[in-house]
Amino acid sequence: MASAGITIALDAMGGDRAPDMVLRGADMALQRYPELRFVVFGDETGIAPLLTKLPRLRPAVSITHTSEAVLDDAKPSLALRAGRHTSMRLAIDAVADGLADGVVSAGNTGALMAMAKFVLKTLPGIDRPAIASFFPTRRGESVMLDLGANVDCDVENLVQFALLGDAFARTVLGLVEPSVGLLNVGSEELKGNDAVRAASLRLRDALSPIRFHGFIEGDDIPAGTVDVVVTDGFTGNIAVKTAEGTAKLFGEFLAGAFRHSLMARVGYLFARPALRMLRMRIDPRRYNGAVFLGLGGIAVKSHGSTDALGFANAIGVAVDMKANGFLDQTRIVLAQLYQATSMPQPAAL
Amino acid sequence: MASAGITIALDAMGGDRAPDMVLRGADMALQRYPELRFVVFGDETGIAPLLTKLPRLRPAVSITHTSEAVLDDAKPSLALRAGRHTSMRLAIDAVADGLADGVVSAGNTGALMAMAKFVLKTLPGIDRPAIASFFPTRRGESVMLDLGANVDCDVENLVQFALLGDAFARTVLGLVEPSVGLLNVGSEELKGNDAVRAASLRLRDALSPIRFHGFIEGDDIPAGTVDVVVTDGFTGNIAVKTAEGTAKLFGEFLAGAFRHSLMARVGYLFARPALRMLRMRIDPRRYNGAVFLGLGGIAVKSHGSTDALGFANAIGVAVDMKANGFLDQTRIVLAQLYQATSMPQPAAL
Repeated sequence: MASAGITIALDAMGGDRAPDMVLRGADMALQRYPELRFVVFGDETGIAPLLTKLPRLRPAVSITHTSEAVLDDAKPSLALRAGRHTSMRLAIDAVADGLADGVVSAGNTGALMAMAKFVLKTLPGIDRPAIASFFPTRRGESVMLDLGANVDCDVENLVQFALLGDAFARTVLGLVEPSVGLLNVGSEELKGNDAVRAASLRLRDALSPIRFHGFIEGDDIPAGTVDVVVTDGFTGNIAVKTAEGTAKLFGEFLAGAFRHSLMARVGYLFARPALRMLRMRIDPRRYNGAVFLGLGGIAVKSHGSTDALGFANAIGVAVDMKANGFLDQTRIVLAQLYQATSMPQPAAL
Repeated sequence: MASAGITIALDAMGGDRAPDMVLRGADMALQRYPELRFVVFGDETGIAPLLTKLPRLRPAVSITHTSEAVLDDAKPSLALRAGRHTSMRLAIDAVADGLADGVVSAGNTGALMAMAKFVLKTLPGIDRPAIASFFPTRRGESVMLDLGANVDCDVENLVQFALLGDAFARTVLGLVEPSVGLLNVGSEELKGNDAVRAASLRLRDALSPIRFHGFIEGDDIPAGTVDVVVTDGFTGNIAVKTAEGTAKLFGEFLAGAFRHSLMARVGYLFARPALRMLRMRIDPRRYNGAVFLGLGGIAVKSHGSTDALGFANAIGVAVDMKANGFLDQTRIVLAQLYQATSMPQPAAL
């Protein structure tokens, strides 16, 4: 993957095991993208000694010192008002100032969204940004949004999320014409609330720039029926956490079954390599990196509890978005939508 | 379990494998509840020959013939208007007429809800009935509602669902003081939409008759954090289908892992008895039976694709509700709520 000339801004102070996990993650990302560069924001007294242990990373990094960091439980509004010198804010500023092509942080999600929205603004034609992530399915990988940025969504929000998800699937999953589905309680046209029914009519329009599959149901998410799952932030957040929790419970039940008898323990020994492959296939670190879509810049949120491998994957998402022109792709589908439909075109577009 | 004097009305024509699956399910239920009696509605030419093969069931059954049945794709409004002689409608009428203590059908969900609501009415103090079901968790079993009867829910609906779920958990799961959680996108008080925030305030009230845990998130559902999960029908339907689909996908991934190599196949042979136990633990037939709560009678919807064992379990839910006084329990908590809080008490209560 081409990474020449790409620079990523890192919030070195966000995440349970920061800054160690952040820098080791950057080091791992460098293995995959040797020409990548980093601008790192955080406490230099913690960062500098770590860098001496990472000789490959050292020449690829420039550090900007700050002793301030956003607390994990800080209210987004407070972080926005009083956090102008935090590592998170400075990393976002670096994107706005053209010093970096994207920002990655494992810190406070609400604060990161509030700051990124304030600093990077939303793209013309987008009312509200959404949080997207990808996940394993029967058919490979799919994208889902919104995962919690917008608890209440109207028809415009859902239509815009569909376009953002389409552009993300094209540029990060490399799909040529991703299929997009709208999450609902049934597949018939009359099902659901007003917002999903109206959004479906708009996306079904022959002139819509995306390939709209129609309504999908909850079990279509893990089945991979569509490449992009669109829903409001309330439902999306609950669906994705329900899926994660169910997979975890299943794993625990399975571990319990293997401990159940001597025979089962023997069986486990034989099956271990294959089970390790299964575990890799659904490893949450592979799917780390919730992306804020709809902003004027690239911003990726890593899970706070991830390790270096997970953080490296979150960096990878930001790099892929930049390398494959996510922002340009978004502008293209937005322009097509406003040209194709009778929607009032925003002046700024 | 005491089943003396309990009679269940069965819609013999609902479900993919009806009437065979319905009658065999009734026969299995009779094994568990030897004193149970059935009134069966459907096509006698199909039912009578089957009964000759089920000598235990035969004396426990009385058949009312009808050649009409609700089609699987019939609109609820049409079924309600034109379906007065269908097996489903006659089975519901039997409950209203005092000929049966509850009705079980594996037919069209929407039609069953519409007819049951029309015939059995809602309980005084309940604005809209909800669909509830139980499911396996880390700690045992929990109940969730609404699973799709009400796409849009206000604060009153959510509070009433909490009471209905409490009464259901007491009478069917046998819990003394079940904990009740409200599904949300975060556990902090400020999270979520207006309806869940207002419902939380009401349920937190010291005089509320239920044990309210507070907000829970999607991963709390499989974790079994609470005994009763309360949510609107849009979110609940999607969450439960997402969980089912995720468990199914995990099972497929697991089967694939065991097929992956000769070693893994050998491992499977050793672990098979333990894996069979795991499969039993999450067998959807164990959790068959979606219950319509809030009606003036007991109505249970079986999965349409279930087999005799699953249908027998759905009958078991109806029997437990009757034997343990679900309707009386519901009236008690409703009366406590209206006495305890400043809510305007419905005249009929």
